[in-house]
Amino acid sequence: MASTSRPVRIVDVAALAGVSPGTVSKALNNTGALRASTRERVREAAERLGFVPDGSARSLASRRSYSVGLLSSDSAGRFSIPVMLGAENALAAGQMSALLATSRGDPVREQHHVRALLGRRVDGIIVTGRNTEPRRPIEVPVPVVYAFAPSRAAADASVVPDDAAGARLAVAHLLALGRTRVAIVTGRADRLSARVRVEAAQQALREAGLDTVREPLFGEWTERWGRQATDALLRTTQHSGQAGPDAIVCGSDQVARGVTDRLRERGVSVPGQVAVTGYDDWDVMSLASRPPLTTLDPRLEDLGRRAAELLLDAIAGAPHHGVELVPPQLVVRESTTDD
Amino acid sequence: MASTSRPVRIVDVAALAGVSPGTVSKALNNTGALRASTRERVREAAERLGFVPDGSARSLASRRSYSVGLLSSDSAGRFSIPVMLGAENALAAGQMSALLATSRGDPVREQHHVRALLGRRVDGIIVTGRNTEPRRPIEVPVPVVYAFAPSRAAADASVVPDDAAGARLAVAHLLALGRTRVAIVTGRADRLSARVRVEAAQQALREAGLDTVREPLFGEWTERWGRQATDALLRTTQHSGQAGPDAIVCGSDQVARGVTDRLRERGVSVPGQVAVTGYDDWDVMSLASRPPLTTLDPRLEDLGRRAAELLLDAIAGAPHHGVELVPPQLVVRESTTDD
Repeated sequence: MASTSRPVRIVDVAALAGVSPGTVSKALNNTGALRASTRERVREAAERLGFVPDGSARSLASRRSYSVGLLSSDSAGRFSIPVMLGAENALAAGQMSALLATSRGDPVREQHHVRALLGRRVDGIIVTGRNTEPRRPIEVPVPVVYAFAPSRAAADASVVPDDAAGARLAVAHLLALGRTRVAIVTGRADRLSARVRVEAAQQALREAGLDTVREPLFGEWTERWGRQATDALLRTTQHSGQAGPDAIVCGSDQVARGVTDRLRERGVSVPGQVAVTGYDDWDVMSLASRPPLTTLDPRLEDLGRRAAELLLDAIAGAPHHGVELVPPQLVVRESTTDD
Repeated sequence: MASTSRPVRIVDVAALAGVSPGTVSKALNNTGALRASTRERVREAAERLGFVPDGSARSLASRRSYSVGLLSSDSAGRFSIPVMLGAENALAAGQMSALLATSRGDPVREQHHVRALLGRRVDGIIVTGRNTEPRRPIEVPVPVVYAFAPSRAAADASVVPDDAAGARLAVAHLLALGRTRVAIVTGRADRLSARVRVEAAQQALREAGLDTVREPLFGEWTERWGRQATDALLRTTQHSGQAGPDAIVCGSDQVARGVTDRLRERGVSVPGQVAVTGYDDWDVMSLASRPPLTTLDPRLEDLGRRAAELLLDAIAGAPHHGVELVPPQLVVRESTTDD
């Protein structure tokens, strides 16, 4: 920052817009009766001058704090961080501050954070989780939107990744490439994200008159499991005399990386003999794989942004209800096609 | 949350502590003249009842907002997120709120965020960066502490990882295991973290009467570069008839993973023939490597926590100056010793 210039004051905005300071206040705080054109003119003037309303003064005037709590139950933050960054972006664009509060999976800590956020008079709260399992709602007197991990209460507003759509995209991509003997290797069977994707993939195969080459393999979200599952797949098909898979749909990029590593180590070419798809588009896995992975980007930042939009609507008096799905995006790389 | 019980009020705390509500306010806001024992009794009562002061009321009374800005220039957040989470933890423990603001490397965005934070009347700001390159200070009328990326201004307070200490720990560990032919493979030569670690490792070797088996190899922070550098190392030593390295000190876990992969692919046993060390203790790399990596944990959460402590001191009127180094921790795994 080169220098701290004189802060822009409300009178400067008023002068540029040709209105009184009181009108500026009403326009920027969405209070009082003003013509839309006046409101617009004031906003343009404020933006042109880079006017930042004094948070405390604004909040006293409007009984709103113009701040939102970002409550995360995650500790590592692999999934919740992009969601929170997306939300923070959308909130900043709407002149709202984001109060960060991480509970690290500890309910007592979460309770403490919720009380602290309410003590701050936040206008609303975005709750994110470490996975997509439905979670217990928080009970607070302000609007709440759940992001990534939906609320168990059906009337609450939740924004979650469309895992079924992702699995269908992967299968459709493989079928379009002419693959017909599809195997599935995924993570923990007690995780909704694993089960939802497997069921959607199987359904998509059935609709094409196909089935998986053997029962889907559930295990862990690790590279090691990807390697073990590949050994199991190749062993079974070798011993049964059955044709092996020509495609393996994986439940995560980590699993897919283990699968491609083991296929390469056993002399099976990817994608020549077997095409492989991942899930998450986590660059350190998807780009570092040999070959780089075709995968699904769950668009977590967009998901966070959308959660912030729903919350801003609710704060403005137009709440949403139920679950909104964010469709993932197929990212095609060399693990399925070497064109 | 089972239920929203009646909020604890200041009069409840006053009753339990046996003082007036005004005394509770003074004690919790650190204002007025009170005996230390009274202050202590009030705090205990507040804690026992789970009393959360009303942020707005408290801030009006004390002219402090009890909030701190967490300003990050990072986009992906690989290094800054643990720093911010550590800071948020320490701030929450001190009843301070953390206002999240991410500039994604965009100076205009950063300027906007700084103004918005000042508009919120934050009591101070913690600035984190995407790497350890010294950065331009921000000019604001509140205390600032720089975490991970230090300020270029020597009088500012900065908390950074002690990269030299980490490199010395790695070399000392390898020497203690009897390794004497040490090679170095690291990332970008234009990065301070790469150069500082290389120089410290070379210095530690010289102090033991040794030198690296060849000039340190600078490249990229990628697995691919780790593989390429390994090829180069093995080629040189084969052609020159020179003995190859019995240890490779790597500049990151990603580089070390590439190194161990290529050594394995070329039939060189790790750690039998060559021991390998990483840097960062990034679990998806250090634990997924075959074998898992001996590495340095830069303790980024502790670094963030320490930055918050320095900032709280500065807000309380006792500012720190200069650079404080956070020593990393050696984490020993199978890439250096199979005992």
